[in-house]
Amino acid sequence: MLVITGKTMVYLCVGHPTDHVKAPEVFNDLFRDRGIDAVTIAVDVAPEDLAAFVEATKGWRNLIGFGLTIPHKEAVVPLLDELDPTAQRTRAVNTVRRLPSGRLVGGLFDGLGFVQGLRDAGRDPRGMSVLVVGAGGVGRAIAFALAEAGASSMAIANRSRPRAERLVDDIAQIVPGVSVDVGSIGSGRYDLVVNATSLGMHEDDDLPFALDSLAPGTVVAEAVMSPEVTALLVEAERRGLTPHRGRAMRDAQMDVVARFIGV
Amino acid sequence: MLVITGKTMVYLCVGHPTDHVKAPEVFNDLFRDRGIDAVTIAVDVAPEDLAAFVEATKGWRNLIGFGLTIPHKEAVVPLLDELDPTAQRTRAVNTVRRLPSGRLVGGLFDGLGFVQGLRDAGRDPRGMSVLVVGAGGVGRAIAFALAEAGASSMAIANRSRPRAERLVDDIAQIVPGVSVDVGSIGSGRYDLVVNATSLGMHEDDDLPFALDSLAPGTVVAEAVMSPEVTALLVEAERRGLTPHRGRAMRDAQMDVVARFIGV
Repeated sequence: MLVITGKTMVYLCVGHPTDHVKAPEVFNDLFRDRGIDAVTIAVDVAPEDLAAFVEATKGWRNLIGFGLTIPHKEAVVPLLDELDPTAQRTRAVNTVRRLPSGRLVGGLFDGLGFVQGLRDAGRDPRGMSVLVVGAGGVGRAIAFALAEAGASSMAIANRSRPRAERLVDDIAQIVPGVSVDVGSIGSGRYDLVVNATSLGMHEDDDLPFALDSLAPGTVVAEAVMSPEVTALLVEAERRGLTPHRGRAMRDAQMDVVARFIGV
Repeated sequence: MLVITGKTMVYLCVGHPTDHVKAPEVFNDLFRDRGIDAVTIAVDVAPEDLAAFVEATKGWRNLIGFGLTIPHKEAVVPLLDELDPTAQRTRAVNTVRRLPSGRLVGGLFDGLGFVQGLRDAGRDPRGMSVLVVGAGGVGRAIAFALAEAGASSMAIANRSRPRAERLVDDIAQIVPGVSVDVGSIGSGRYDLVVNATSLGMHEDDDLPFALDSLAPGTVVAEAVMSPEVTALLVEAERRGLTPHRGRAMRDAQMDVVARFIGV
């Protein structure tokens, strides 16, 4: 049972909106399991209010840190004091640790979590031909991590093409040896296709991409965690493709995040 | 059982330090009893960080509001958009409601709570001769409320005399008909003596004042709520005086505060 007192430390999940976030349940279970007197709450802050909010966390002394979700993962970067190497490369952050001095250190664990989640399901990305759909914070994180995990060729699809091109350039520059280009669902043959857009979070969302060009057995992976089974995963299963839940990414990154925030 | 999700609203208790605050337990019980999906946490913010913190709450959309405790009750006043009449008179605030527009409205319920707590214990302050020791946020609130509740004469004691004088002037100006002056524990005959300092919160604190000059039966009241029984109350009881717990103030003001923040 969760009992909050004046001594309880706090961890936040900052997004806009926050109705869909699962972090409070997940982290509160973690804190309880580990016997840590800390609580996680969701904080709904719109983009125009993010800078003032992050500034305020520097003086919040019983704050452990905070997670960031849509739409703040990239916007938070210039507001922090320090970035870990992955966050620095991808210019996106999903976890911030508040040091006792008030300094804020950003890390990015979506990508590592995604790759680890694939491996946990017996799907090593090494040598795979991959399409990442979505070049926002999550897409960048996942694409970098797949490139570093040894994907042989990568394509990036994004509604706004310049953003896809920027990610292609960044990967080419930082991860040598991977073949990477702007692509689309119909433009190649893929072993793994990742939905790194937010499409699928809401019931009336369109599918993020059509599945008809994919060969049987292709892994169709979600970054969307809630709902756990999206329309995309249902449709992939129906077509004889191999669905892979966004939940796997979250489960795999819990330990890493906990270590980063020091709990 | 308290289950926090992405939809849970938030209420804060802001102080420095916050180890002693009871608001999380009290408000979380209230929310549970009323079936409200909201959670209260303590926020430890030092005086130099208060302005940035309060500014940030304007953009925190799932925030109901926040309570303020030592040492922020007066410092918060210029940071708010609006004050209720009691807060305006006393220039102190213990409760802030965040309107959906982001506007912050301050109210002060310590004083009303204190007077109501006295009445609930069968001790109407009307006609009493009163000494209030401490002229900070809580002292101001209690002194104003006692004056308005019909105390016949009032004395204000404070370590810093100018602060006591300012409170005397303010009461004289705003509440006509009450005789009010700077005083001290030995300088008069009182029916009620109130500890409105923070002395008593910590185990090794000195007594806020000596009790030897008080006549048997004098009510010795605490504004300190934690611990519930302070050394002052123990000593008062031992001497045949009438101890009155700070807890009575808190219990009496819960409903008023809940109405103010709209839960």
